[in-house]
Amino acid sequence: MPRRPTKPPPGPRDEKGVLSARILGAAREEFAQHGWAGTTIRAVARGADVDPALVYHYFGSKEALLDAATTPPQRWLESVAATWATPVERLGEALLRLMLGAWADDEIGPVLRAVLLTAAHDETTREKLRRVVEGSLIGASHVGTDGTDRVKRSGLISSQIMGLAMMRFVWKVEPVASMTDDELVAAIAPNLQRYIDGDLG
Amino acid sequence: MPRRPTKPPPGPRDEKGVLSARILGAAREEFAQHGWAGTTIRAVARGADVDPALVYHYFGSKEALLDAATTPPQRWLESVAATWATPVERLGEALLRLMLGAWADDEIGPVLRAVLLTAAHDETTREKLRRVVEGSLIGASHVGTDGTDRVKRSGLISSQIMGLAMMRFVWKVEPVASMTDDELVAAIAPNLQRYIDGDLG
Repeated sequence: MPRRPTKPPPGPRDEKGVLSARILGAAREEFAQHGWAGTTIRAVARGADVDPALVYHYFGSKEALLDAATTPPQRWLESVAATWATPVERLGEALLRLMLGAWADDEIGPVLRAVLLTAAHDETTREKLRRVVEGSLIGASHVGTDGTDRVKRSGLISSQIMGLAMMRFVWKVEPVASMTDDELVAAIAPNLQRYIDGDLG
Repeated sequence: MPRRPTKPPPGPRDEKGVLSARILGAAREEFAQHGWAGTTIRAVARGADVDPALVYHYFGSKEALLDAATTPPQRWLESVAATWATPVERLGEALLRLMLGAWADDEIGPVLRAVLLTAAHDETTREKLRRVVEGSLIGASHVGTDGTDRVKRSGLISSQIMGLAMMRFVWKVEPVASMTDDELVAAIAPNLQRYIDGDLG
């Protein structure tokens, strides 16, 4: 890795992308570890190895920085939408593979991780998680027979997907952390499929 | 609620129970919100409305305080053991009802909540969560055909149970947060039952 300057000034367009990505990476770490109240722009700037003024210059405020750090990229929202369009009889596996792929993705994984960890700290950041879950898993879904049935099924799907994400990627509890994607799909996809189109009693 | 003295001295045996419960309650809040590194004995004492010296007097150290605040009561471990003794064909429902009851319990609920939230912050407290999950859900289980199959099935059971706990009790995502226990049992117990004795591919 090339040596990075201690306090790079705002630079040309290309450099802006690199620096803002570095600031967002540091912000995700800080928010995840110290929560909304415990995170300062100064600490984020230190983590990103830039001047605090640059953080303000690029993001404007701590609120806007949290928002940028915990908003999944457009690419993710597009794959979520595409996945929900999978034929219903294969949707359980498709959703599970989407989630496993997203966590392994260099760009999306850290955002999901930051959303889940930051949500532990306080009500403000928990609201953000609710919006991500509702946007990706509940709001986008079109399973079920009517509106009530749809959100209930989507909530149950979310409970299994989010639990797997916590066990595998955040808490790293064995053996779930080390099972292969294919083992997880064989074990879990049929359960998701039941939430999608099975009889829920 | 009766007015509490600002700095109660160490008192007789009965008072000790009341004060240490108050300290543990405050410690759970602090650890959950600020993590291991961000929590001070002074802040816990302030939250409990006692002198910091009393916290040291009762618990000895910050390590011991974290341990006491996040160790489920013996009563919980006994109900876990009793639940795992349920006939295997009814175990899915029994485990789910155990978990729903535990979160609703005045004494056990706050401990589980503290374990899950504190685990968001750092590796040390995550280790504690792994031990609680392994102790209550993986280690205590005797499903499956051999050791490997047992821990895999128990890990999958945990992924569903922990995901439901996060969605319903920690993040409070709707509609999962407001569904009745009976609705959840009808929807989720059969999925747990498949992890217990179904074909996992």
